[in-house]
Amino acid sequence: NQILVSDVNELNQAIKDAKPGDKIVLKNGNWKDAELLINAKGTPEDPIIITAQEKGKVFLTGLSNLRISGEYVEVSGLVFKDGYTPTSEVISFREKKGVYANHCRLTECVIDNFNNPERENTELWVALYGKNNRVDHCYFTGKRSNGVTFAIRMVDEACRNNNHQIDHNYFGYRQNLGSNGGETMRLGTSHYSLSTCGANVEANYFEYCDGEHEIISNKSCGNTFKNNTFFKCRGTLTFRHGHDNTAEGNFFIGNGKDHTGGIRIINERNKAINNYFYNLKGYRFRGALVIMNGIYNSPINRYNQVIGGVFSNNTFVNCDHVQLCAGSDSERTAPPIDSKIENNVFYHDSKDNIFTVYDDISGISFSNNYINTGVKPLLKDGFTVVDMKLVENESGFLFPVSDQIKNAGCSLSSPVATKENTGVTWYPIVNEELTFDNGKVIKIEPGLNSLFDAVESSEPGDIIILAKGEYVNSKVLSIKHPLTIKSEKEKEASILSEKNNMFQIENGGALKLIGVKISGSESPDMAGNSIISTSKYSMNRNYKLIVENCDIEDLTVNHSFDFLRIYKSTFADSIVFRNCNFLNVSGNIASLDKETDDLGIYNAEYVVYENCTFKNIGGVILNLYRGGTDESTFGPILKFVNNKVFNSGKNKRNKIGCSLYLHGVQWAKIDSCNFIDSAPIKLNLSKDEPIIKFSNINIYPKVSIISNSNEFSLINLTHKKQ
Amino acid sequence: NQILVSDVNELNQAIKDAKPGDKIVLKNGNWKDAELLINAKGTPEDPIIITAQEKGKVFLTGLSNLRISGEYVEVSGLVFKDGYTPTSEVISFREKKGVYANHCRLTECVIDNFNNPERENTELWVALYGKNNRVDHCYFTGKRSNGVTFAIRMVDEACRNNNHQIDHNYFGYRQNLGSNGGETMRLGTSHYSLSTCGANVEANYFEYCDGEHEIISNKSCGNTFKNNTFFKCRGTLTFRHGHDNTAEGNFFIGNGKDHTGGIRIINERNKAINNYFYNLKGYRFRGALVIMNGIYNSPINRYNQVIGGVFSNNTFVNCDHVQLCAGSDSERTAPPIDSKIENNVFYHDSKDNIFTVYDDISGISFSNNYINTGVKPLLKDGFTVVDMKLVENESGFLFPVSDQIKNAGCSLSSPVATKENTGVTWYPIVNEELTFDNGKVIKIEPGLNSLFDAVESSEPGDIIILAKGEYVNSKVLSIKHPLTIKSEKEKEASILSEKNNMFQIENGGALKLIGVKISGSESPDMAGNSIISTSKYSMNRNYKLIVENCDIEDLTVNHSFDFLRIYKSTFADSIVFRNCNFLNVSGNIASLDKETDDLGIYNAEYVVYENCTFKNIGGVILNLYRGGTDESTFGPILKFVNNKVFNSGKNKRNKIGCSLYLHGVQWAKIDSCNFIDSAPIKLNLSKDEPIIKFSNINIYPKVSIISNSNEFSLINLTHKKQ
Ligand SMILES: [Ca+2]
Ligand SMILES: [Ca+2]
Repeated sequence: NQILVSDVNELNQAIKDAKPGDKIVLKNGNWKDAELLINAKGTPEDPIIITAQEKGKVFLTGLSNLRISGEYVEVSGLVFKDGYTPTSEVISFREKKGVYANHCRLTECVIDNFNNPERENTELWVALYGKNNRVDHCYFTGKRSNGVTFAIRMVDEACRNNNHQIDHNYFGYRQNLGSNGGETMRLGTSHYSLSTCGANVEANYFEYCDGEHEIISNKSCGNTFKNNTFFKCRGTLTFRHGHDNTAEGNFFIGNGKDHTGGIRIINERNKAINNYFYNLKGYRFRGALVIMNGIYNSPINRYNQVIGGVFSNNTFVNCDHVQLCAGSDSERTAPPIDSKIENNVFYHDSKDNIFTVYDDISGISFSNNYINTGVKPLLKDGFTVVDMKLVENESGFLFPVSDQIKNAGCSLSSPVATKENTGVTWYPIVNEELTFDNGKVIKIEPGLNSLFDAVESSEPGDIIILAKGEYVNSKVLSIKHPLTIKSEKEKEASILSEKNNMFQIENGGALKLIGVKISGSESPDMAGNSIISTSKYSMNRNYKLIVENCDIEDLTVNHSFDFLRIYKSTFADSIVFRNCNFLNVSGNIASLDKETDDLGIYNAEYVVYENCTFKNIGGVILNLYRGGTDESTFGPILKFVNNKVFNSGKNKRNKIGCSLYLHGVQWAKIDSCNFIDSAPIKLNLSKDEPIIKFSNINIYPKVSIISNSNEFSLINLTHKKQ
Repeated sequence: NQILVSDVNELNQAIKDAKPGDKIVLKNGNWKDAELLINAKGTPEDPIIITAQEKGKVFLTGLSNLRISGEYVEVSGLVFKDGYTPTSEVISFREKKGVYANHCRLTECVIDNFNNPERENTELWVALYGKNNRVDHCYFTGKRSNGVTFAIRMVDEACRNNNHQIDHNYFGYRQNLGSNGGETMRLGTSHYSLSTCGANVEANYFEYCDGEHEIISNKSCGNTFKNNTFFKCRGTLTFRHGHDNTAEGNFFIGNGKDHTGGIRIINERNKAINNYFYNLKGYRFRGALVIMNGIYNSPINRYNQVIGGVFSNNTFVNCDHVQLCAGSDSERTAPPIDSKIENNVFYHDSKDNIFTVYDDISGISFSNNYINTGVKPLLKDGFTVVDMKLVENESGFLFPVSDQIKNAGCSLSSPVATKENTGVTWYPIVNEELTFDNGKVIKIEPGLNSLFDAVESSEPGDIIILAKGEYVNSKVLSIKHPLTIKSEKEKEASILSEKNNMFQIENGGALKLIGVKISGSESPDMAGNSIISTSKYSMNRNYKLIVENCDIEDLTVNHSFDFLRIYKSTFADSIVFRNCNFLNVSGNIASLDKETDDLGIYNAEYVVYENCTFKNIGGVILNLYRGGTDESTFGPILKFVNNKVFNSGKNKRNKIGCSLYLHGVQWAKIDSCNFIDSAPIKLNLSKDEPIIKFSNINIYPKVSIISNSNEFSLINLTHKKQ
């Protein structure tokens, strides 16, 4: 029996009447604010099928979601986009608490950028409950708000030992969340992590899953991760909680991208066998292989000791870091025991030292591992240095080869998971990156609001070129997409504003300013003006801001006039100030400190200040803040080099009382900088091994760098008058 | 010549072609995103007229504004609503910098709730530039975002000595802004305050203009304020800067409302003559008459000494405060000199002490003033105590009458400005207050989302009655208008949520919860949940929250679970918790501290905690915060009585480390409260004479109230174990 339904009421009626073998077909079109509840019972032979009239032509938009419960129900062909779920889950394998789906299947469905506009609101895209369900050949891309993309929920017995099958799905782009909660997949939670989940995650393709440092957070027992591909994903497959899990036949392809990692191991009898790791650059918890120290008698939500771990027949090619006993500290004192690292091949063509050992590794037995010439073996025993060559295999991957390697390294038989053999065939794959300068060139002349008009009519990637003269704007310049604004000849065009803010970067926006002069002289006489701000609302797309070769001056009409003003629930991929002169500013240059709940959330990943001069700045040059003790993120990452700071940071309204303040920053290079007659530099370092390096710093008059700890390096501090 | 135009292009063409005497008629309808520029030259005899096809049927909506420049242009009949200006001014008497209107008139126009959604964005509704312009018979109501409603701008010579006429306008409801910038009218700024403005503000009606403590901020010389009525307005007509201004024949009708004031005087030769003051309750700078201390050699933006002030023939009926040398402190040390207070009548039927003197009043001569029997005269000389009777005059105002009063008190000849003789006749006047319980009653039964569905379909003022049972919601309950939710029988209905927040008060919303149980037991296992939140976005309408007879418990699934979570750029008229029990909360009850820029902005006006019990609260019971030194506001105002606090405030994430924190609160009564095994009480008092009274406080174990100053009173502090 096949029934075509065209709205939710018809669907509900059809489901009520449905008999095993029935096929309910959703009519092509836009189903807006549609909450679908499929509660039906098919049989193993005759499932009830819910599908689209044509696959990819039924769109769930607005406040929509899907609940599947009952048995032997199969849903396919739906696309969720242009909206978000009104509940906490987009696709849920339950009707409500205690009423689950079993033996049901979700196949060939798409969720595309279906996000709550509130970045911090937590939603799952797929929540698996019940048992024996399958999710396959789905495409999930563009998860941008808080919450796991795909979760197996183990809330009660009816959801454990579940035998779920998750295969041939394409997990696409997930931007850096800048916070915990950006996992692409999670199996269980710490609460139930000693129960068996028993899921099989096989032959899925993960691409640019950069949400946080756990691509997959395994928090239960007895799961298998097999033949999946992780392509340029920041983070690791993490065996965070639970025992007896296996990662086998997976490909981790970093291609040299920052923070790409492999497998991180905690707990008992977890195995990493026959995996391939290529060009992974992650360090600390994001190494290619990370075996952690545990805690004796660990609470369930902390770190169990690694016992009985097996790490064998893996191949590592140009991976920078293998970390043993990682996380060793006064709490994590239990090193791995009864574990084996054997039959692995480690190849690196440019780094001689790839192993880091943080504690006692006598509990790990090493045997028959191979290293190429030039790389330092971890131990004498168990490692053989041999000459290897990289040879491309039939799938195009480089494998180290040598006659001397015996029974070691991975040998992969199944086809590798790719873009092509996962997900759906009928839905376009879009590059989600914000890109500058790929649009058209727009030349404009000076005049009241001529720049405003050009910005309003611009399209993504456009370049607005300003002829010589003054550009006064009586309206806020609203930046809704990547846009470059450039002076035709360097510093001949000046931009002014009569509003309390000149540029506002909206959700989806990115701004590049090149060679312009910016003045605050026409800004209104009120406290709290700014030149550039983010949206005041949550932005669930990360933005970029690049300011190069610009002169910025006279931000002084009233107090607290900031150059960059950001708001809570916004996140910058990158903020770059290069070759700029900032002169006379009553407020801050950039105070990136709006996440003060100290939940590990922060406001910018990469921050670059390079070759800039700052003179008479009342507030901070930079306040870069990440509070709390969360360990799931990578940034903030700061490069602050070749800058000169004069007479800055000393306004009484500058509450933190310093010119440069770094709080919880994870990586910073501060080199060749001059601080003259300015408020001090202050550090509040976190405990998660930040890398903070100062070199060639001149501070006059002499004053110390204020810090809560001495875990930073400082080379060549001088106090010359200049 | 009369030309009908139907869009902006046609209008522009018509204006280009316009000749003196032409009449350009805007077609009836909705002009969306219309920026009108009227740059034309009429003559005194033949002005160019821009008007509506029918008055009140031409609506400027969306991002719209109006600029008038040129000469002898008259604009009438337009209505601005449902939008806001894209620039900083809605109606501007200039084209751009330096290009002004002269001899132009705006008449019978309306601006109705035409506000930027961003509460803090600063916009003027009417900005007068140039000279000899008139604004009359307009209706301005519902200004809700930052910025003066009506301003005379004196930016250059062409705008001074301007002879502007502002008459017969109706200035309607302006809600409490909770910040500086809420003036209804401003004439000049401190910069040019020693220049002559020369405007005449006559026969206007001001109603509920409650934006801040200056209803009118006069900041220039030579202005007249004549025969205006101020009806139930919080604040005063303030002669803030500038000399030689006169307030004459005005009516200040407080009708017993909080913070209603009269005239506040600073600077030289300012006069208050023949005014009538009725039932004004304001204190401090909001007295019926406030004559301030100045600063010797004051900077232009501070306080000039009062010299040559004349305060005569005024009548005060039941006004609580007349303040002399107000603001006297270590900076304001210059008392009024060469001034007269004469021929005034002061009547009060219930308060014996209406005068407060803060410094030397020998520079004021007092003569022929009358006081009724029972009120204490300020001095022996210059005041006569007589028996008076209140008699209603023909306009319905009560005047004190006695045969013994000679040549004193006000005598008003012109008709009083009223709703009826000001503004326009063709536009409805709407009460803007949020009102509970004037809608229909909706009875509902327990069930998943039954409450959600009822809230969604509710209308303003509705009352939702819950039958006994559990109300689980998988979606956020979004409160978009005043709504009451009430258990049919007290505490038999429980409300639970599967979302990280249960109730969200949106812009325009107000919530009253009566007799329900609220539990966090179904809330998601994540940090930072809440039961009630404001919008995360700016709210430009003040909200109300009332929680009575409720039990709230088990907000503990994870850390930082708050009862009330507010966001920046929101403002509560009132937050009331009465007869409630709060048990086991991992976060805060209410942390009203989101305006940390310390610009004098705060988050709630009236806060009441009465007869409540708090047990095992991890965070603060209340954090009430107003930062900075701004003096333009009234609140926060706190009543905290008969509460019991047990084992609270001690969670390590409670950064401020106390159970009750008051920062910059302006008025507080804390009476009959018990703090047992809890974090301390902490005060950060501002310097603007806050009134903070503690009485009958028991704290066990013994610990002091921590305070930055001893400017609070404390009666009967005990340390009993109970
Ligand atoms: Ca995580
Ligand atoms: Ca003010």
